[in-house]
Amino acid sequence: MYIEVVANIGEARSDDFLHKTVIVVDVIRATSTIITALINGCKAIIPVETVLKAKELYREGDLLGGERFCKKIPGFDLGNSPLEFTKEVVQGKRVILTTTNGTRGIQKAMKADHVLAGALLNSKACAEAAIALKRDTVILCAGTQDVFSLEDGLCAGLILEELVSALGEKHVVTNDFGLAMRGCYLHAKNTLYETLLTCTNGKKMCKSGFQADVVSCTKTNITDQVPILEQDQMVLLQLSQGRRAF
Amino acid sequence: MYIEVVANIGEARSDDFLHKTVIVVDVIRATSTIITALINGCKAIIPVETVLKAKELYREGDLLGGERFCKKIPGFDLGNSPLEFTKEVVQGKRVILTTTNGTRGIQKAMKADHVLAGALLNSKACAEAAIALKRDTVILCAGTQDVFSLEDGLCAGLILEELVSALGEKHVVTNDFGLAMRGCYLHAKNTLYETLLTCTNGKKMCKSGFQADVVSCTKTNITDQVPILEQDQMVLLQLSQGRRAF
Repeated sequence: MYIEVVANIGEARSDDFLHKTVIVVDVIRATSTIITALINGCKAIIPVETVLKAKELYREGDLLGGERFCKKIPGFDLGNSPLEFTKEVVQGKRVILTTTNGTRGIQKAMKADHVLAGALLNSKACAEAAIALKRDTVILCAGTQDVFSLEDGLCAGLILEELVSALGEKHVVTNDFGLAMRGCYLHAKNTLYETLLTCTNGKKMCKSGFQADVVSCTKTNITDQVPILEQDQMVLLQLSQGRRAF
Repeated sequence: MYIEVVANIGEARSDDFLHKTVIVVDVIRATSTIITALINGCKAIIPVETVLKAKELYREGDLLGGERFCKKIPGFDLGNSPLEFTKEVVQGKRVILTTTNGTRGIQKAMKADHVLAGALLNSKACAEAAIALKRDTVILCAGTQDVFSLEDGLCAGLILEELVSALGEKHVVTNDFGLAMRGCYLHAKNTLYETLLTCTNGKKMCKSGFQADVVSCTKTNITDQVPILEQDQMVLLQLSQGRRAF
């Protein structure tokens, strides 16, 4: 199985995703939030690039979620903290979400056969889904404003490590950036939280009062669920759906 | 001290190098070759981007060196293997060198105050030189055709590690990519040669019969010499020169 790891959205070319599975990773915080919302019973997440588009798609009963510069968008129901997307708030609702990087990454990946949302929370499940979907796979680290973010690279490294655990070393081939991210993850795996506090987004989160979000986003493999894009909305991947894709 | 690590030449913007020290790293093989040539008594290396430019600058007594697609350029005296640049061949001579990535990286860095050539061979010396030259520093991983190469990232990680050893953890600040490369180096440091054999250029070298070059380029901190660009040629940095730059 060939897995390419891409360092940030700016380096991604949509046409390279044709016929592939793309796992979009934005650990702090978009994909961690999407996963949390869906496992808490949210009906679907609609990722959009702009505030205007979010407002256009809004229908009564929906929730508007998103951030710009780490802050909730004025007039929106929710920001981009996974801790806001509780069962009480999101169960049975559709959430229209716009964030600076993660939702842009999902939009960029639209040409792929399958678009999944990955984070540390569901890395093992992402590896299993990628295997089940039987495509060459790209891990697209969202990064921040077209610059690499360490937490996304660590997650890519963990997904690679889970793929190697599942398939064996010989059956997982990756690019040099993937090799680097796997090494980087293996070095940091016992100190993930401390490592996330040293990186740009971790420091920014703490400064903005979101340290609890970093704690939440650092949890590893706490769910076996994987969000997948169906038409224009993210829902939980069903195993039968994976089977259909063979 | 702030150290930015840039993943490949395509990501580098010349204007970002103003007033800085740039350490260009192309472990396999251009900067390893430049270091080897200069410590073997080569008078100067003139890095140029094209074969035409190399031939234009040639004067009697010079040597022409370089590669395209790992192979020696027809009519040139030398390829791009550090093992060719022995004392017997290069002592007292000027070498005009053109390679696919490394010399391009040096050209790209021209706007910097100081341009150094770094590799695993002289990583500690590069860290010491960067400290002595007292500038914000960029480690420019040359990569291969605008794609990240693992061996350059490992070298960036080692240079960072040497900076931390010299200055202390608190006095070395790097970007997220630098943090990742440092982690990646620390994971691989006891198996550098084996790791280099798994990456794209390592595999390409072995396939082309240059495995001995990989062995040679993997040697760590075997010299305290650092090539520096003076006008349009690389020579060994003299300590007094470092002092002049303060």
